Amino acid sequence: MASEIKKIGVFTSGGDSPGMNAAIRSVVRTCAYLGIECVGIYRGYQGMMEGDFKTLDARSVNNIINKGGTILKSARCEEFRTEKGRRKAYDQLTKEGIDAFVVIGGNGSFTGALLFTEEYDFPVIGIPGTIDNDILGSSYTIGFDTAINTVVDAIDKIRDTASSHNRLFFVEVMGRDVGHIALNAGVGAGAEEILIPEQNLGLERLLDSLKRSKASGKSSSIVIVAEGDKIGKNVFELKEYVEEHLPIYDVRVSVLGHMQRGGNPTCFDRVLASRMGVKAVESILEGKSNLMVGIKDTKLVLTPLAEAIKAHTEIDEELIRVSDIMTT
Amino acid sequence: MASEIKKIGVFTSGGDSPGMNAAIRSVVRTCAYLGIECVGIYRGYQGMMEGDFKTLDARSVNNIINKGGTILKSARCEEFRTEKGRRKAYDQLTKEGIDAFVVIGGNGSFTGALLFTEEYDFPVIGIPGTIDNDILGSSYTIGFDTAINTVVDAIDKIRDTASSHNRLFFVEVMGRDVGHIALNAGVGAGAEEILIPEQNLGLERLLDSLKRSKASGKSSSIVIVAEGDKIGKNVFELKEYVEEHLPIYDVRVSVLGHMQRGGNPTCFDRVLASRMGVKAVESILEGKSNLMVGIKDTKLVLTPLAEAIKAHTEIDEELIRVSDIMTT
Amino acid sequence: MASEIKKIGVFTSGGDSPGMNAAIRSVVRTCAYLGIECVGIYRGYQGMMEGDFKTLDARSVNNIINKGGTILKSARCEEFRTEKGRRKAYDQLTKEGIDAFVVIGGNGSFTGALLFTEEYDFPVIGIPGTIDNDILGSSYTIGFDTAINTVVDAIDKIRDTASSHNRLFFVEVMGRDVGHIALNAGVGAGAEEILIPEQNLGLERLLDSLKRSKASGKSSSIVIVAEGDKIGKNVFELKEYVEEHLPIYDVRVSVLGHMQRGGNPTCFDRVLASRMGVKAVESILEGKSNLMVGIKDTKLVLTPLAEAIKAHTEIDEELIRVSDIMTT
Amino acid sequence: MASEIKKIGVFTSGGDSPGMNAAIRSVVRTCAYLGIECVGIYRGYQGMMEGDFKTLDARSVNNIINKGGTILKSARCEEFRTEKGRRKAYDQLTKEGIDAFVVIGGNGSFTGALLFTEEYDFPVIGIPGTIDNDILGSSYTIGFDTAINTVVDAIDKIRDTASSHNRLFFVEVMGRDVGHIALNAGVGAGAEEILIPEQNLGLERLLDSLKRSKASGKSSSIVIVAEGDKIGKNVFELKEYVEEHLPIYDVRVSVLGHMQRGGNPTCFDRVLASRMGVKAVESILEGKSNLMVGIKDTKLVLTPLAEAIKAHTEIDEELIRVSDIMTT
Repeated sequence: MASEIKKIGVFTSGGDSPGMNAAIRSVVRTCAYLGIECVGIYRGYQGMMEGDFKTLDARSVNNIINKGGTILKSARCEEFRTEKGRRKAYDQLTKEGIDAFVVIGGNGSFTGALLFTEEYDFPVIGIPGTIDNDILGSSYTIGFDTAINTVVDAIDKIRDTASSHNRLFFVEVMGRDVGHIALNAGVGAGAEEILIPEQNLGLERLLDSLKRSKASGKSSSIVIVAEGDKIGKNVFELKEYVEEHLPIYDVRVSVLGHMQRGGNPTCFDRVLASRMGVKAVESILEGKSNLMVGIKDTKLVLTPLAEAIKAHTEIDEELIRVSDIMTT
Repeated sequence: MASEIKKIGVFTSGGDSPGMNAAIRSVVRTCAYLGIECVGIYRGYQGMMEGDFKTLDARSVNNIINKGGTILKSARCEEFRTEKGRRKAYDQLTKEGIDAFVVIGGNGSFTGALLFTEEYDFPVIGIPGTIDNDILGSSYTIGFDTAINTVVDAIDKIRDTASSHNRLFFVEVMGRDVGHIALNAGVGAGAEEILIPEQNLGLERLLDSLKRSKASGKSSSIVIVAEGDKIGKNVFELKEYVEEHLPIYDVRVSVLGHMQRGGNPTCFDRVLASRMGVKAVESILEGKSNLMVGIKDTKLVLTPLAEAIKAHTEIDEELIRVSDIMTT
Repeated sequence: MASEIKKIGVFTSGGDSPGMNAAIRSVVRTCAYLGIECVGIYRGYQGMMEGDFKTLDARSVNNIINKGGTILKSARCEEFRTEKGRRKAYDQLTKEGIDAFVVIGGNGSFTGALLFTEEYDFPVIGIPGTIDNDILGSSYTIGFDTAINTVVDAIDKIRDTASSHNRLFFVEVMGRDVGHIALNAGVGAGAEEILIPEQNLGLERLLDSLKRSKASGKSSSIVIVAEGDKIGKNVFELKEYVEEHLPIYDVRVSVLGHMQRGGNPTCFDRVLASRMGVKAVESILEGKSNLMVGIKDTKLVLTPLAEAIKAHTEIDEELIRVSDIMTT
Repeated sequence: MASEIKKIGVFTSGGDSPGMNAAIRSVVRTCAYLGIECVGIYRGYQGMMEGDFKTLDARSVNNIINKGGTILKSARCEEFRTEKGRRKAYDQLTKEGIDAFVVIGGNGSFTGALLFTEEYDFPVIGIPGTIDNDILGSSYTIGFDTAINTVVDAIDKIRDTASSHNRLFFVEVMGRDVGHIALNAGVGAGAEEILIPEQNLGLERLLDSLKRSKASGKSSSIVIVAEGDKIGKNVFELKEYVEEHLPIYDVRVSVLGHMQRGGNPTCFDRVLASRMGVKAVESILEGKSNLMVGIKDTKLVLTPLAEAIKAHTEIDEELIRVSDIMTT
């Protein structure tokens, strides 16, 4: 029963994303506002199994809204995938008197939460925190907006040097399964070509596009490549391929890497996280469970976790078209 | 008839906002992609009346997607509000052979466009470019996302010095009629109190809130005040009032001013502007007119200009609540 | 005797500046490295008189090198200017067993330190922490580099909107007695005119310069005004004066204010602060006192506090000349 | 004779660096101020040999002081190393009537200039533009300050995610022959270990240091590695080595790459470039040649090009010591 909720746990899980701290802060302060005790669970499911808990009051989350990373740490945890692992976690939660939890993370984290709540009928609400923006049920995930700005800032810098030397750059960005970062940051940075996992346009088209770009008088070219691109070559192989088949370019590679996960969150991510934290706690107190908080347009919505983890959000075809037109 | 459109004009009007250049670039490149001629109109309606035109090809908008301001300049124009002024503009457009135009601006700019198209049956599509985010028919306007990040960055800096000295700061942000910037940036910056035109909570409540904040052990307080706040005092009078009635604080004022209108646009604003530009040109070619391109959730939509200018978008009550809870 | 130093106090005093935390961290870690105990003194001389102390070990300064403000807080303190106040402070230091202290601040803070050490023969080393860069004996003070970048970033943003509207902006920056921020940020931002306390060029020259700028075809003008400018008018009066005498401009004002004191310190300020902290502690252990650590070219040097507080550093005439040439 | 100088050429050469545009602007405006014609030479020595020239007036360098890269493009040029190549260049310069040139670049560019001026007795002044800060005769080169801030910003972001996951990161930064970027950015970012070409501390020491760092309770570790580090392993091999020999860490690699060369220049670099440009032109007009403009402390100085290219500037031993102490 919702009326019995006296203590709520909160944790971050999986890859960290900027804005997770703002979400933690929001969960903690909403609990304080509503007179509920809030317990921070460190290192995700790993810390849950080990009882790595700490009570958090409103002041304990001062000055974290603008910090990247997560003060609760994050981890991936194999053991929680086993029944035994989840039993350990349940025992620790029970021992601590935690009546429900809010999990901030992505698909993997939600899958674990779903298994857990099905086995133990434990109230659980999810908040989508991942830079990949690939969660069904929310138009935006916490951290995505910051990540695309980090990528665009980096490419703006690379563009400076690319233009000065008439170079072609392959820039690898995060996105193993989905191309949202690549597509949005690519359009935002004015990239000449964007290679994403959802599309395999083939190497021929890439060469054609680069030839056209050169012919049109552009002084440099930037090609964004998502990690999970299906063109069959990684970014270093792409460089070699183009150097061999299109020797008109001086080609360079840049792999942006983990800086994409960090940084002070943007205002958008801070506000989104603040709103979602309130909604998560209030949903638990309304007796809801097994749901994820999402945003559709400007309104918060709830989606069953089972739905949210079913598939990645699809890439926006219209945005691919915009990208093509912009490289005219 | 849409089939007769051979030349499209584009201009920016009213207060400038970051991302206007990305919108111009998008209109220009979409025209180039579709084989339509594109003409830049300088200084808004003023330049239109004076025939201040320049043909823009795809390369002429290189390297502007990441620049604040507008390469076409902007202006407010009294004369265009008169029939005589609009007649001048029409003559110039006709002389240049411009068949339709895309206006990038806010309410005032759209009102002018509406009058003009009603008088001359001239195809017009609007793109919402203003930092105020106050246009009905679009959840976001171009420049708003950049502006709230500029404000949040400034307040993050002010917070550093406020915390070091246990001070109370009143920070004035833009928003004469609407509090969207104040509310979003206020939540994003973790402000202790946010004063917006849509609400007049009274001075008593402000004092209470500041007392509570002090009592709760916070080392500093930031109060965001929208320009158009209705509490009856400007930000300097607020300072005096609080110093008199609540002498526990060392109070300072900061007026953020015009820097809020500038800066490199965020990825969100660049992508939004790129998408809207494509949609605007395509809508004209589909024979549409008197419409504004907007975004609802992740999809572009069209709204009659007459609807768009009717009223400001309302402030989100849920976000006000989030703001109250966060200051626990 | 230096050999008897077992416990060193450290504090920040006066206006805060970015990089003070990096200096605190350096003092604390150098003490830890050398086996000396380090005590943080909160709120400057005020906290010293009240015994507001806390022992700091190497881990207590984790993750502060990149934070603006000062974790030890800062304050101005009237009482310490009295003999009685300094007696209180001495008693507290003695009670805590503090054998020497490092004061991070500006002229006012050093003046207090000098009085104190002369009265009580207490080992004292100063580190120049102020955004004003006005301390004799050091080519750079901690915080100056960050402050000029903050100003330049803000003006870059203002320039966007100034250019879009062909406006003239008066931008007031910090610097009550010295124009280092105004002059450096003005040259860095490409300002058309820079008004500093060290020069009074008169209003006529300003008008002439603005006329020339307009005539040369510039689309906007930015005039930087240091707070302490001696031209006889504040920035709002300047606006009115120019509007009256040079009605060709649409004039606006922006007062940058306290954001100039905050923000994540630049690499330069972090490195400078780290180096100065080491030098300060080592100097104390070498038996030195009444000295300020400074930097000349790339080397650290020591200057008697009595010298450092004698006068402000002079403005660089060559840089004024560069400024004049650049506005050609 | 200096009195005969009527037309000065300016170009950028070698790897580009942020602030080169500010230096170009300064050379151009100083010429305009002094009534000398200024000609931009595109693509360095390559463009010189091809006669790729364009006259630049004061307005042609508007709005570039804050842009990374170089509007004159840059290139490396093999042919200029031959007598024949330099003859071509001389013929083009003569044909254009260029009486002297200012070269903005690094060691390689100065070596070419020196050969040229010795063969043709042609007035030449160098300005040190390189992110590496490795030029004898100047304490700072244009671009270095921006580059170390770019690196520190990136590492601040990486630190967020490193801390959240208790990870060890190897971050590779630029610096093939010299460790100035690595050392300064490493101290600025609070790196746990810094590996530079000038030192080979050995793999044992690295492992010891990492063990100590872990034992001291740090939640993450960042090791900065200069490209040219002599430890015998590249950054990916280092990762493997540490994973094998110190399995307590989850190790990741990040190669920052070419973004280090771009970005809006810092105020320091803009001011430095502005000052050096003035000095370069004035030196030519004073009849000087074969010299490089440098900065020592806050004053500009001139050094024979033959001296400047003799060796790299040495790493600061004191800063290495500071780095060691800070990782306590």
